[in-house]
This record gives sequence, structure tokens and C-alpha cells, in this order.
Amino acid sequence: MAVSMYPISVPVFVKHLNGLAGCLKKAQALYAEKKYDEATLIHYRFYPDMFNFARQVQAMCDHAKTCTALLSGIEAPKYEDNEKSLAELIARVEKTVAFLKTVQPGQIDSTEDKAITIKMRDRELNLKGLELLLNRSMPNFYFHATTAYDILRHNGVEVAKRDFMGNA
Amino acid sequence: MAVSMYPISVPVFVKHLNGLAGCLKKAQALYAEKKYDEATLIHYRFYPDMFNFARQVQAMCDHAKTCTALLSGIEAPKYEDNEKSLAELIARVEKTVAFLKTVQPGQIDSTEDKAITIKMRDRELNLKGLELLLNRSMPNFYFHATTAYDILRHNGVEVAKRDFMGNA
Repeated sequence: MAVSMYPISVPVFVKHLNGLAGCLKKAQALYAEKKYDEATLIHYRFYPDMFNFARQVQAMCDHAKTCTALLSGIEAPKYEDNEKSLAELIARVEKTVAFLKTVQPGQIDSTEDKAITIKMRDRELNLKGLELLLNRSMPNFYFHATTAYDILRHNGVEVAKRDFMGNA
Repeated sequence: MAVSMYPISVPVFVKHLNGLAGCLKKAQALYAEKKYDEATLIHYRFYPDMFNFARQVQAMCDHAKTCTALLSGIEAPKYEDNEKSLAELIARVEKTVAFLKTVQPGQIDSTEDKAITIKMRDRELNLKGLELLLNRSMPNFYFHATTAYDILRHNGVEVAKRDFMGNA
């Protein structure tokens, strides 16, 4: 079992994206059964200046696909950030997973020293591949994944840690 | 920049534990200034069957120290899980960081294939070192770190993503 860039990145993203897709499907079933308005969940946020639920899911997807694209040099698909239902959010997660699965281990491995430049609004960020993964992509990915999960739990969706872990 | 077990584990734990310690200190200052009862935060939970805030912080610390102990073979300090104030939670985070810093890179590197056995309530879990880190310790660490952060934000503590990232 070798430690290299691929096993510590893409499969981790895929595992938790699949986990979140399962959580979203449970939410969809509950909201349909109870005739709850999905918009109340889509727009829910823990504090006025935090991302709402839809943006948490979008950001989780984007950190996974952007990291994978930057490391591999393969252009990532662009999404419009206009999801308005759980079905649309599930579709976004699933197309993100489909993109990640097109990338082969050999296209990610050995990118730990690759020079990466990220254009921010007001500056450029220069990082090596491993720094991108450990200091930016992975913590943000987990941050948005967990916050999305916490919002589901807080709104009464019956999901458990094994769903988050992608083990359900 | 080599990819090996140490850089993808202990420094990640330390960075976000320091980040959370900073968040806890901001919470402490706010609750003192506003004369809020810290117990309302310590006991806050997003849903009745989720961990409360204190247990989120305890679990974050424990996943970091247990993973580090299992990989290195160095016994981790035991904590009593009896923190009742922000000051006590800060002390727990700080003593966890102090333990992690006693472990040297050479004691963690090359443990990716190490056979690890975890005693669960009703069974044993057998994992290799890298599986422990990627499939158990790191996702749980980030899960509890983020949920603790989200609880602080939801309760009005003015922390930001850079605090979570340990960059503040």
C-alpha cells in the first residue's frame, strides 16, 4: 500500500461525494413524504453570513473537481451554480463523481511538487501540489461536506455518520 | 516535497487543533464580555442525538491523538472527558497538540502498511496504517472540527474560515 497523491485525494473525494449523494436522497424522500418545501432546506444557513445549504454542496463539489483538475492538468467541467432542488443537487454531485472517475491514478500521482497557480480575486496563490491538497482542497472539501451534513441533521433528516462516511 | 505518512497526518491535526483553540479563545472572550452562560454553548447540539459541543471538541482531539498513537506505537495520554468550561476545552486541545508535537516524523513515516487493530464495543477492526488515517481518523477529525466550528458560528461567535484553517 503506497502513499502517493492519488489514493490520498480522488478516492477520498469520491467516497464522501457518494456519501453525500446518499444523504441527499434520504432528504428528498423525507421532504416528499412529509410534503415539506425543499426550498426551506436549500436556503437554510447556520448564520446569516454563512453559505446556505445549496452553496455548501456546490462548494464541496467544486473543491473536489478543482483540485483534481489542477493536479492532473485535465480541464474540469463548469457548472452554473443554479441548482434549486434536491434532485438538481444530487445531479451535481453525481456529475462531479463522474468527472473524478475519468481521471486515472497515473495522472495524479507524482504531482506533489507540481507548481500550481490559483487566481484569486486580488492576487495569485502559488502552491505545490501537495500543499494545494493538504492546506486548501481537502480541509475545504471536508468543511463543506460536514456543514451540509450538519444542516441536514439540524433539519431533521435521519442520516448517520456511516452515511457521511460513504459506508451506508 | 515527499508524500509520506507524517506530513499527511500529524501536521494536519496540529494545524486545525491550533485553529480550533483560537476559535475557543474568541468564544471565551465573547461569552465573558456579554456575560453569557458558557454552559449554553458547552451543551449545545444541532439535534437531540448528536454530540454536544464539548463532545465534538473531545472527539476531535481523540481522533488526532489515537491515530498518532496507533501509527507511532507511542501510548497516548488519557483524558477524563469532564471539561465543563471553555478554559478546560482549550486546555484539552493544547495538551493534545503538546502530545502530537512529541512524536517525530520518523515515528510516523513508513507506517502505511502497519497492521492496526482497533477494539470496538462488539468487534475488532483490522486496518493498515493508511486505511486508518484515510478512512477513519481524518474524516472523523474533520467532521468533529467542522461541527464544533459550525456550533460556534450558529451561536454567534465571530470566527471565520481562516480561523478554522489555522491561518488566523
